[in-house]
Amino acid sequence: MGPGEKATPTDIENAYQLGKRIAEQGWVLLTGGRNVGVMEAASQGAKANNGLTIGILPGNNDKGISEAVEIAIFTDMHNARNNINVLSSDVVIACGMGLGTASEVALALKSKKPVILLTDSESQTFFKKMAPVYLADNVNTAIAIIENIVGAG
Amino acid sequence: MGPGEKATPTDIENAYQLGKRIAEQGWVLLTGGRNVGVMEAASQGAKANNGLTIGILPGNNDKGISEAVEIAIFTDMHNARNNINVLSSDVVIACGMGLGTASEVALALKSKKPVILLTDSESQTFFKKMAPVYLADNVNTAIAIIENIVGAG
Amino acid sequence: MGPGEKATPTDIENAYQLGKRIAEQGWVLLTGGRNVGVMEAASQGAKANNGLTIGILPGNNDKGISEAVEIAIFTDMHNARNNINVLSSDVVIACGMGLGTASEVALALKSKKPVILLTDSESQTFFKKMAPVYLADNVNTAIAIIENIVGAG
Amino acid sequence: MGPGEKATPTDIENAYQLGKRIAEQGWVLLTGGRNVGVMEAASQGAKANNGLTIGILPGNNDKGISEAVEIAIFTDMHNARNNINVLSSDVVIACGMGLGTASEVALALKSKKPVILLTDSESQTFFKKMAPVYLADNVNTAIAIIENIVGAG
Repeated sequence: MGPGEKATPTDIENAYQLGKRIAEQGWVLLTGGRNVGVMEAASQGAKANNGLTIGILPGNNDKGISEAVEIAIFTDMHNARNNINVLSSDVVIACGMGLGTASEVALALKSKKPVILLTDSESQTFFKKMAPVYLADNVNTAIAIIENIVGAG
Repeated sequence: MGPGEKATPTDIENAYQLGKRIAEQGWVLLTGGRNVGVMEAASQGAKANNGLTIGILPGNNDKGISEAVEIAIFTDMHNARNNINVLSSDVVIACGMGLGTASEVALALKSKKPVILLTDSESQTFFKKMAPVYLADNVNTAIAIIENIVGAG
Repeated sequence: MGPGEKATPTDIENAYQLGKRIAEQGWVLLTGGRNVGVMEAASQGAKANNGLTIGILPGNNDKGISEAVEIAIFTDMHNARNNINVLSSDVVIACGMGLGTASEVALALKSKKPVILLTDSESQTFFKKMAPVYLADNVNTAIAIIENIVGAG
Repeated sequence: MGPGEKATPTDIENAYQLGKRIAEQGWVLLTGGRNVGVMEAASQGAKANNGLTIGILPGNNDKGISEAVEIAIFTDMHNARNNINVLSSDVVIACGMGLGTASEVALALKSKKPVILLTDSESQTFFKKMAPVYLADNVNTAIAIIENIVGAG
């Protein structure tokens, strides 16, 4: 999970690497499926490494969908689909922070999903006051945390 | 799409064969994901033939999920998830009829999805009054219709 | 509940009278909230008689909303909002039949809500095969059935 | 909007006063509708002052609903209903902070709704980095901000 239009260059680079590493581990990548920002970069990173990519789309058709999404789920429920994203994930990684991502992190923690924050420190401070979260400051750490959670890849 | 608890033996047999044939064509099977009725049989038929199976679940956890579902999307929105099922499908097949299935056929036709009714004739009569539908009286016909719609497998 | 763009003149007249009678009884009218067809007519009939009108809208803003809706709930989940309509109603009346209405009747019966079909006979035949429904051929009968269900107004 | 089970005594007192003041202004109170925490207190405060109270419930029946909710909308979509809460509000007030509330604030800001944060300062810092928000440190200020937004009551 991560910002769309407002992703930073670092968010994008981290997202691509996360997608790549997730694919290399044989894990499935699930994103919000749009062709912008962290969703696009992570999907591209996974697809380029033969990973399976799922996109949970806000709309009801192919408009704005990432070309790197192999399995597209069309919800037509816009931001309310964020809850489906987190419920369908074994582990949630926030790669950067924005309003949509904040809603996903909050919903994931409310549903007691493991959440890794690869974000600025203010976001980490905000969320860890409310629930246990994993903090990561780079992609390697994030992947190592997932390995610990789900067992070695 | 098709009945869960109230599926008939014919529905179940048709569903298994549909799953098998869908997998053989290299298509992806999407169902409501539960471990009963048409959903279970179709998923088993597809999985036994190396097909990719997606389940759009009503709840938020593994309880009641078909073991033949490979990719589980947890919506936690119960019957409202029926709209996601049909929006995420290129072609909708109703294999038998029940209340949930009726809602899916209606929603699919409202979204102008191609719908194949492998059902009793009263259901066919009811829906074809409201929108163009494809009628099938066996699995072979249903598969042939899909081939026509999406191009030969 | 009833057709929007495809409502017949009879549907519209029945809907207006239902809205009026519901308001006179002191009941609350809940519709899909749009400014067309049965939704619009029922809301107008209720509002003109000092009834409280709720609209569960498919979108996220005022566009296309009936002016007779006093309380607007914006779902931004389009046809999936049909399940909310029926879950939030004590009694569901189908005033005419269309694809959206068919989905609502099916979902209402699946959730064991009392459903009154003020529709053509084919629709009545289709649904009563699957679950107990109330049949009405005019507004007076429909209102009398509701009085029996919820107690005299 | 505000915490349920984890509301503080201050949150509860503020929520009751907000409900009271909202009712006195003739505004409509919309909450998540449950019988705990900020939802319960705000609904009670509004109802005791003849306000109209709407609850957008996570489930599909009366279980756990506040007795002070007059109009209950049953979504059966659990935390995904948070998006409906904010889309249906003209102004969103966060009275205290928790995971559900954080998701609502984020979703509200994403939909460009006016949001008033009657919360701890860390939450204010977190959200105002991402979007313009109104900050309030007491109920009087919050009500004054709403008056400015919607025009004097």
